[in-house]
Amino acid sequence: MLYAVIPAGGSGTRLWPLSRAGHPKFLHPLTGTSASLLQATVNRLAPLTTPEHILVVTGAAHAAAVARQLAGVPEENILVEPSPRDSCAAIALAAAVIAQRDPEAVMGSFAADHLIRDADAWVETVRAAVRGAERGLLMTVGITPTRAETGYGYLETGEPTGDGPLRPVTEFKEKPAAPVAEAYLRSGRHLWNASMFVWRVDVFLAELARQQPALHAGVSAIAAAWGTPEQDDILGTVWPTLPKISVDYAVMEGAATAGRVATVPGDFGWNDVGDFHTLGDVLPADPAGNVVLGTDAKPGVLLHDCADLVVVPQSGRLVAALGVRDLIVVDTPDAVLVCPRDRAQDVKVLVDALKERGEEGLV
Amino acid sequence: MLYAVIPAGGSGTRLWPLSRAGHPKFLHPLTGTSASLLQATVNRLAPLTTPEHILVVTGAAHAAAVARQLAGVPEENILVEPSPRDSCAAIALAAAVIAQRDPEAVMGSFAADHLIRDADAWVETVRAAVRGAERGLLMTVGITPTRAETGYGYLETGEPTGDGPLRPVTEFKEKPAAPVAEAYLRSGRHLWNASMFVWRVDVFLAELARQQPALHAGVSAIAAAWGTPEQDDILGTVWPTLPKISVDYAVMEGAATAGRVATVPGDFGWNDVGDFHTLGDVLPADPAGNVVLGTDAKPGVLLHDCADLVVVPQSGRLVAALGVRDLIVVDTPDAVLVCPRDRAQDVKVLVDALKERGEEGLV
Repeated sequence: MLYAVIPAGGSGTRLWPLSRAGHPKFLHPLTGTSASLLQATVNRLAPLTTPEHILVVTGAAHAAAVARQLAGVPEENILVEPSPRDSCAAIALAAAVIAQRDPEAVMGSFAADHLIRDADAWVETVRAAVRGAERGLLMTVGITPTRAETGYGYLETGEPTGDGPLRPVTEFKEKPAAPVAEAYLRSGRHLWNASMFVWRVDVFLAELARQQPALHAGVSAIAAAWGTPEQDDILGTVWPTLPKISVDYAVMEGAATAGRVATVPGDFGWNDVGDFHTLGDVLPADPAGNVVLGTDAKPGVLLHDCADLVVVPQSGRLVAALGVRDLIVVDTPDAVLVCPRDRAQDVKVLVDALKERGEEGLV
Repeated sequence: MLYAVIPAGGSGTRLWPLSRAGHPKFLHPLTGTSASLLQATVNRLAPLTTPEHILVVTGAAHAAAVARQLAGVPEENILVEPSPRDSCAAIALAAAVIAQRDPEAVMGSFAADHLIRDADAWVETVRAAVRGAERGLLMTVGITPTRAETGYGYLETGEPTGDGPLRPVTEFKEKPAAPVAEAYLRSGRHLWNASMFVWRVDVFLAELARQQPALHAGVSAIAAAWGTPEQDDILGTVWPTLPKISVDYAVMEGAATAGRVATVPGDFGWNDVGDFHTLGDVLPADPAGNVVLGTDAKPGVLLHDCADLVVVPQSGRLVAALGVRDLIVVDTPDAVLVCPRDRAQDVKVLVDALKERGEEGLV
């Protein structure tokens, strides 16, 4: 039985004013249904595992909201970080806790805030990755690129080894400049790194011990105390000492160089819900191309002679638009945002400006 | 001493969602200061008259708000219409009430919801009109046109009579089609009809009696009972029987044909505050051309890389905009509007759509 780990962190500043530090994007129903991104992530796992095998790693500020949204996940599977230490500490803690239960378990790590259009295709891809993990490989799921995206990291792959869809990952590539991204797109050998990982926990922890011995020792100590009266003491003492580093940089890049990483290319309508524009591309639109998030809300929207909008009415007020196109309009109880879709990436500038103005309550 | 009458009616549907049936535009601070349009209208009268000589005619729904905004105007000068009967009944009632106090008084009628940039020039124009009125003419103030506007009525004038700025008005012209408006603009003989009137009340009431005898009889009966115990009874009985007609159509057109109307051309930055676009043209803008109505409100606005916006933050929430230009953004406690400035005239379409949806509470 697969263990699924869901790191639920990050605030999503490009989704401001909907996403806030206190209520980050994974808690919001950005899925075209009433399910939050986090709930949709759990729902997608149904064919692969049971709620008892799902672990969520989240911040102290969001533990209660996560627990309420995921009523089926046992309390002891909600791992609460005392402070953010980036993805390696979060994923390694989960791996070490799972290893306490089942030392040779296969675990997958799946972000809490991504959208996937074709859940069946995703399940098949993960199953192929599990088969690679069972053979001792550190598996990733690579997304077949559909454009020369400069906002993602890439996986550079070698020749397929002949057994199924697996390909070796020769190198992790940072976010590229535009000409490099164009070259990646043409190469046919580069995949988007969606930060989905599948591995045996013993294999991952051994690689962690090799490359990040301090981090390995720390999470091992915490995991050993997990569920005992010492848990909080050990967590409070050890956690703040762990290196703040991403799992890609801390483990996967070195493991790829050592030939221990492979990938399964996936093509299932993946979207990282990074901003309102890309969100609008993936959710169902009306005949004029307008996407309204939360169509059930009253009084909702009144769109007259509008096209290709992304409208987020989340304040209970009417959002009326007349004669505009390609705009984002987000309405929340204390802030409203208007911005062209092609400037969606820059929304974080507003968040920075608010911090400078001392308006932390709006961030 | 000039009597000033301010008909305060009309809801201003092109200023939705700010202007509502229950809180029409004249009550809103659309002046670039904290004064409402109504208050600014009264303030503008200071060089011409005293508060004791100012009368406001308004609907029952707005009497309390008018009384509070105009603390200096005596209660008995706030004339409350039991129901809307268009401008002739409102202005004629005021004229008849004034005639009870002073049968040969000169009165001016000035809309409650217009903006005037150069108040001194306006005062001089009205003074010239008063001199015409004292000679027995029904005076209007005509606005020197600055564009071929199709949204206003026009005054067609004859040759100046030689004595000062006065010109005879030969005909009232309805809102023209575009080519006609172009011809008017070129003619030099056509002025915008701003519905500002100045006359001796006895002259006006005589002309009313000639052209609209029923209306004259009705308002005379009401005025005779004004301030007596019978006031409410007579008003309640007679008012609903009065013809619903504008003063232009009921009296001024016929009077012009009879050679009894003259005008003083005025050039004082007049704006009828018909919609948010024209409002933006008349109010002070920041260096990027953005006009923010209610700049003192907190948290106000956050505009990044924006130009030529009209932003109305009136809900206490932050209005953030990024990378947009020539847009109107209006934020109120129960509705937000986004619309290009060149579609400002069409905002009433949204009001109609809301009525169709049965959302009267938002209208």
